[in-house]
Amino acid sequence: MNALQKLEAANNSNKFICVGLDTDINKIPESIRKESNPIIEFNSRIIEATKKYAAAYKINFAFYETEGANGFKNIEETLKFIPQDVLTIGDAKRGDIGNTSKMYASAVFDSFGFDSITLHPYMGFDSVSPFIEYENKLNFILALTSNPGSNDFEKLRLADGSYVFQKVISAVKNWNNKNNCGIVFGATKIEDLKENLQLISDLPVLLPGVGAQGGKLDEVVTAFKEINRKRYLVNVSRAIIYKDSSDNFDLSAAEEIINLNKQVSNLLS
Amino acid sequence: MNALQKLEAANNSNKFICVGLDTDINKIPESIRKESNPIIEFNSRIIEATKKYAAAYKINFAFYETEGANGFKNIEETLKFIPQDVLTIGDAKRGDIGNTSKMYASAVFDSFGFDSITLHPYMGFDSVSPFIEYENKLNFILALTSNPGSNDFEKLRLADGSYVFQKVISAVKNWNNKNNCGIVFGATKIEDLKENLQLISDLPVLLPGVGAQGGKLDEVVTAFKEINRKRYLVNVSRAIIYKDSSDNFDLSAAEEIINLNKQVSNLLS
Repeated sequence: MNALQKLEAANNSNKFICVGLDTDINKIPESIRKESNPIIEFNSRIIEATKKYAAAYKINFAFYETEGANGFKNIEETLKFIPQDVLTIGDAKRGDIGNTSKMYASAVFDSFGFDSITLHPYMGFDSVSPFIEYENKLNFILALTSNPGSNDFEKLRLADGSYVFQKVISAVKNWNNKNNCGIVFGATKIEDLKENLQLISDLPVLLPGVGAQGGKLDEVVTAFKEINRKRYLVNVSRAIIYKDSSDNFDLSAAEEIINLNKQVSNLLS
Repeated sequence: MNALQKLEAANNSNKFICVGLDTDINKIPESIRKESNPIIEFNSRIIEATKKYAAAYKINFAFYETEGANGFKNIEETLKFIPQDVLTIGDAKRGDIGNTSKMYASAVFDSFGFDSITLHPYMGFDSVSPFIEYENKLNFILALTSNPGSNDFEKLRLADGSYVFQKVISAVKNWNNKNNCGIVFGATKIEDLKENLQLISDLPVLLPGVGAQGGKLDEVVTAFKEINRKRYLVNVSRAIIYKDSSDNFDLSAAEEIINLNKQVSNLLS
C-alpha cells in the first residue's frame, strides 16, 4: 500500500484520528521515567494500545531533536512499533532550496522510512519538488495553520483578493500530478475550512489543533460530511497521549481514541 | 561575545564570508572516504584550514540528517572544531507552533549550542518567538530566498502593493526588540536587494546563493557599500568546500576564501 492508500483504507474503516507522538520527557508518567529509555517505553506502549484505532501516527521531530543524536535514534526505534498498514507522518516541516530539500526528503523517506511528511511552502515549487518525486509518499504542505500567527502571513490579502494560503492550496493542486500532495489546515480554523473546502477539492487534509489548541472534532467531521468527502486526518496529540499521568496512560490513551472514533462514527452514521 | 557581536567583530575585520558546510559523502575527496568518519575528517580539515578567514560557519542540517542519528552526532562533533569567537549558524529552517518551536529552539541553541539559526516565517510570530526569547542568539528569518521558487509565494503582490517578503521584513523589524533578529536574502536577487536595503534597515542579513547558485559576491558587497553598512554575511558552500577534489581540498578551500576576502577588501577600500 502506498501512503494515500493507507490513508484511504483508514478512512474507509471510519478511522480519522492521527495520534501525535509529541513525546516530552517532562510530561510522561513518573512511573516509566526510571526505564533505560523512557521515551521508547512510552511510545511503544502508546502505539501498542492504540494501533487498532489510529488512522495514522505523527511524529513531531522537534520533540526528538532536543535529545540530539539519541532523539533521532528514538524516531527510528518508534517507527518499528507502528504496523506496516498504518500511515506514518514525519512532522518535520521541512523546505529548502532544491539540492537541500533532496537531502531532507532522503532523510525522512529513505533513512527513516516515513510514509509522509509536513512541508513549508514559503520557498515555492523547487523547495517541495524533491519530496514530490517520491511517488508513493504523501506530502502535507502547510496551508492555513492552527496557531495565532497564521494571521501574520498566511492570511495576508493578495492583490487579486485571495489570501496567501489560498494561493498555496491552488499551487499544491497544480503540483499534484503524482497524486501524492495534501495540505495542512488548522482544525481551529473551522470557518475558513468550510469556506475553502471547494478550493481544496479532493486533496488529502491533515488537521492539527483539536484538543489542547481548541479545535473541535465534531465541527471538522461535520464540515467534511456535508460535502460527502473523506481523505482527511484529525491530529490529536496531547489530549490522547497525556490523558492520564498514571501508569495506566496507555489504556487511557486507547480509551480516549476509542471515544473519539465513536464520536466520529456517530456523526457519520 | 553574543551572536551579533561575533558577526560585527568579523565584519569589522573585513570578514564577510560564511563557509557553508554542506558536506556530502558523495562529494568529498576519495582520499578521505576510507577514514572511520569521513564527514568529520572533511569538516575538521576544512575548518582548520579556513578558520582564520571565515566570518561564520553554516551547517546545513539536511546534509547531516540523511545519516540519521549519526548525522546528528556529526553536527555535534563538527561544532567542536569551530573557534568560540566565530559565529555558527544552524541552517535548519525550522518554524512550527509555539510549543513545538520551543523544542526546536532548545535543540539548536541549548543541545547543539549554535549561535544562530535560519527560520521559516510562514506560520507567523508565535512560530518564531520561542527562538527570539534567546537573547544572545541570532535568528535569520527567510525573506526573499535565492531559489527560483521564491517567485511562487515570497513575491506575491499584496493588496497594499507590497510583496509578501516585504511584509516579512517589516514584521522581523517589529520582532527585533532584543536585537537578535536578521533575515535571509538571496544573493541571486541583487536588484531586489538594492531596492529593499532601506526597508531592511540595520537588520543582519545572511545572503546565500553566491557560487553554484549564480549570485555575485562583488555585486552584493557593492550594494551594501553604497549605503555604507555592514552586518551581513555572504554564504559560500560548494564553491569553497568542493573547490578541489584532491587530498589538497583543505588548502584549496583556504585559498578560495582568502581570494574571496581579498575581493571584498578591494571593493571596500
